[in-house]
Amino acid sequence: MLQTRVIAPADNAHSSPLLIKRLLLSGSRYEKTREIVYRDQLRYSYATLNERIARLANALTAAGVKAGDTVAVMDWDSHRYLECMFAIPMLGAVLHTINIRLSADQILYTMNHAEDKFVLVNSEFVSLYKGIESQLTTVEKTILLTDAADKSADLPNLVGEYESLLAAASPSYDFADFDENSVATTFYTTGTTGNPKGVYFTHRQLVLHTLSMAATVSALDSIRLLGNADVYMPITPMFHVHAWGVPYVATMLGVKQVYPGRYEPELLMKLIQQEKVTFSHCVPTILQMLMNTPSAKGHDFGGLRMIIGGSALNRALYEAAKATGIQLTAAYGMSETCPLISCAYINEELLAGTEDERTTYRIKAGVPVPLVEAAIMGADGQLLPSNGEAQGELVLRAPWLTQGYFREPQKGEELWEHGWLHTGDVAAIDSMGFIEIRDRIKDVIKTGGEWISSLELEDLISRHAAVREVAVVGVADPQWGERPFALLVLREGQSLDAKGLKEHLIPFVEMGHINKWAIPTQIALVTEIPKTSVGKLDKKRIRVDIAQWQAAGSAFLSTL
Amino acid sequence: MLQTRVIAPADNAHSSPLLIKRLLLSGSRYEKTREIVYRDQLRYSYATLNERIARLANALTAAGVKAGDTVAVMDWDSHRYLECMFAIPMLGAVLHTINIRLSADQILYTMNHAEDKFVLVNSEFVSLYKGIESQLTTVEKTILLTDAADKSADLPNLVGEYESLLAAASPSYDFADFDENSVATTFYTTGTTGNPKGVYFTHRQLVLHTLSMAATVSALDSIRLLGNADVYMPITPMFHVHAWGVPYVATMLGVKQVYPGRYEPELLMKLIQQEKVTFSHCVPTILQMLMNTPSAKGHDFGGLRMIIGGSALNRALYEAAKATGIQLTAAYGMSETCPLISCAYINEELLAGTEDERTTYRIKAGVPVPLVEAAIMGADGQLLPSNGEAQGELVLRAPWLTQGYFREPQKGEELWEHGWLHTGDVAAIDSMGFIEIRDRIKDVIKTGGEWISSLELEDLISRHAAVREVAVVGVADPQWGERPFALLVLREGQSLDAKGLKEHLIPFVEMGHINKWAIPTQIALVTEIPKTSVGKLDKKRIRVDIAQWQAAGSAFLSTL
Repeated sequence: MLQTRVIAPADNAHSSPLLIKRLLLSGSRYEKTREIVYRDQLRYSYATLNERIARLANALTAAGVKAGDTVAVMDWDSHRYLECMFAIPMLGAVLHTINIRLSADQILYTMNHAEDKFVLVNSEFVSLYKGIESQLTTVEKTILLTDAADKSADLPNLVGEYESLLAAASPSYDFADFDENSVATTFYTTGTTGNPKGVYFTHRQLVLHTLSMAATVSALDSIRLLGNADVYMPITPMFHVHAWGVPYVATMLGVKQVYPGRYEPELLMKLIQQEKVTFSHCVPTILQMLMNTPSAKGHDFGGLRMIIGGSALNRALYEAAKATGIQLTAAYGMSETCPLISCAYINEELLAGTEDERTTYRIKAGVPVPLVEAAIMGADGQLLPSNGEAQGELVLRAPWLTQGYFREPQKGEELWEHGWLHTGDVAAIDSMGFIEIRDRIKDVIKTGGEWISSLELEDLISRHAAVREVAVVGVADPQWGERPFALLVLREGQSLDAKGLKEHLIPFVEMGHINKWAIPTQIALVTEIPKTSVGKLDKKRIRVDIAQWQAAGSAFLSTL
Repeated sequence: MLQTRVIAPADNAHSSPLLIKRLLLSGSRYEKTREIVYRDQLRYSYATLNERIARLANALTAAGVKAGDTVAVMDWDSHRYLECMFAIPMLGAVLHTINIRLSADQILYTMNHAEDKFVLVNSEFVSLYKGIESQLTTVEKTILLTDAADKSADLPNLVGEYESLLAAASPSYDFADFDENSVATTFYTTGTTGNPKGVYFTHRQLVLHTLSMAATVSALDSIRLLGNADVYMPITPMFHVHAWGVPYVATMLGVKQVYPGRYEPELLMKLIQQEKVTFSHCVPTILQMLMNTPSAKGHDFGGLRMIIGGSALNRALYEAAKATGIQLTAAYGMSETCPLISCAYINEELLAGTEDERTTYRIKAGVPVPLVEAAIMGADGQLLPSNGEAQGELVLRAPWLTQGYFREPQKGEELWEHGWLHTGDVAAIDSMGFIEIRDRIKDVIKTGGEWISSLELEDLISRHAAVREVAVVGVADPQWGERPFALLVLREGQSLDAKGLKEHLIPFVEMGHINKWAIPTQIALVTEIPKTSVGKLDKKRIRVDIAQWQAAGSAFLSTL
């Protein structure tokens, strides 16, 4: 280590630790009258938000919550969730955002593993909660969250109902300073194998993530994705990586915020129009759902800017969104990374080019945001050049990455092998710094000694006019090792078979985009493609389905 | 201290320390081809900036610079200075930015006090340097900076000339990680009494300051002061609080940067036009100078946004700038605060109001930027309410404030009395969170038991059509304790005496803005108002001048 002139902690006493309370302070003083909106049921000002967070802190303290305790929330996207994202960490406690789309068994596992001591339960999940309650090993008390007029509930160890507790509590609380390396939030990743794994983030990490994201979405690029005068509504659940961290950014900047509860397409459409939403974010499947909503037909979304992440953004969806007035920008991240890592960014060189080139870059994973380092690593642990050609595992360093998995030291060491966080994604980085995700390592299709990117194939297939959705996986083949298999959802009234798909793909073979082994020899026409709890293609489930169809000789399979 | 769940350092090994090298990395990858411009002499790309910083690091290492050493720079604003702002801290060394407007004696004092070991000297300062060289106690080696074709110089202990050293050095350097609490920069404040005091900032502090400033200038407010596509040129010296930290922000965002060398008004005008500068910052006196330049007459600056700090921004200057197309925004900070603390911010409420109201707020010190806490403290150390009425000393907390003065522990303790940084400014904070600076504590005029703000008086006097510049100080008065005394620079062909000034001020007395004791009974008409080395009104010098004029019964004094 270099012998720099380090300021010793004793001489650095006035350094103001990076605490979440300082994000709230900023937003509250910029826009005291700007609103937080919940569905079409409630709206209040930032001044009130500030008071309600203090009331919640007082109510939780009265219920017995102490620094270091883990406090879990089971709720849809709401103003209450926003309040919990501040009040719980600001008390020095840990917020566990429960993924309510997991199975009851998995939820039970995560609650015991995280050692939840208090749980705030939305009335819609009371029966689920009661089903697992007898097996919960650490929970002491519960608080009811409800939109109903009836505030009673048959919840074990109930302290009371959220609004009643807040109403009875004092609207001021003097939040103490503490170590910025204190854990603030935890939640569980939905891996495709084994038990969910717990990631965790400190106050310092969340503050730095917020600042870097604010600089990214507002200063970089010709598009100002989010400025203080925007109206923000998440369409990525708050239980999933803090709704990508945007509620913290929006609050720090004093932005108007709209929380839609459970994602009902017609209500989302109503809120977008009524509240004049200008900024949102979601995964591609949710955007599909939104755009297929009856009231979205012919609607002009002009002015709405969205970040798309979670899965690759394909050109067809980008163009379809654009036709309705929605400006999409791709971003990349994962549960382990807080999540923001990179964001599609149009530099001066691209601005001078064609619209088509810009689109190519708008749908890539983008350029790392400030303070993030990204590299490509070979199987031997050596870093590979960023020349757009070399591909390997995308590895990362940044001040806001999970330092491991809670109580899983072995898995944490694997995550951080060679001192970089391993994403499990195959990628290349080009000379302009753009990351292009080629595939999940385990989703790459290995055929005849070649590697085929299932993502690239999905992108090319999605350009066929008959195709609404597509998923490609590798299936075992005695001759080739693996061969690509495509699941398709067609547009209404359209038809396509394996031969028609081949005809669509041949030009791309001739242009050198893919080799001829990449053309699927088998396809299946389905009405829906299985998704994970966070809306990603569930390739594990798809492989199981395909094996069953093949065994049964299903009629909707088409073979070349 | 609360018992939070703190991640121990051993379990936090992958946390990526906040180091200045990560700001450079970000900018360099966004815009590889965007330019850094030096006067009308040189331009090169961010890719080259990156290489030149590596070359400089290699050259400094070869010259013997090691982590922990202090390396001083005596230069005007240049690409070289920008390179030093990165390379020197990135080596783990400390950059001392010498205030070349100080007297030779003061420069000597600061260099010995800071323990400078290496000095980079612009050829214009070689004779100054040689004049103090025999009394320098710690300097071992020098490097010459020059724009001239002749690269030779008679500098003692010369390692070589900057460009020649860079040309001979390798363009790559593997910068190590180290403790983010390592000192990165130091410089001396120009107090009005006693020796200059050394403030110092760590890598962590500069990174956090950069992120918060980026969010402020790009996301907050309806005006996007600075985005990635802007063109930036400082008109606040780089030796003075890192040109307010903006070069770090601009570099992180990949913004085109223009460095004008010494501030020659005609060259500044040429660069603004030629390079299409859209963002700058300066003190009011420098803006006055710029706007009085012959080539600025009738020029349309449309699109130029400037932050004004260092001294209060008055309405007359704001309006005059606006008439030429320059959008001004006031900000507040000081050497001890890195410097950014607050920035004028127009919230939704003000946007709905009149242009006149907005102007009133655009010229105030503004709202604290993210992560800053500001409060008003009474003489007893108690915090006062933020109600727009209570006034006291403005005190601050933020993650980027100097933790003391170098080798002056007593003065550092005074600075941080009661756990807040004391600004020495009298202020009020209104219910919208706006800070209004009323005066420097020592410049408040105490008359007949009342406190008069010299700043407010200057603002009101500046609205008189004949007045180009004004300074007000208190002078001893046997009857009243103190009485205000005004120094005026009049516009060409205009005249004004104490009686005329009284007539101008009476309406403000009648409207209740000031009391009648605030009307100066004595004024002096001068051709120039004394300024400090950083362009502020030098009230210490003004008081000395007034005493001499009064003793001599000067003819240009006018008395009621």
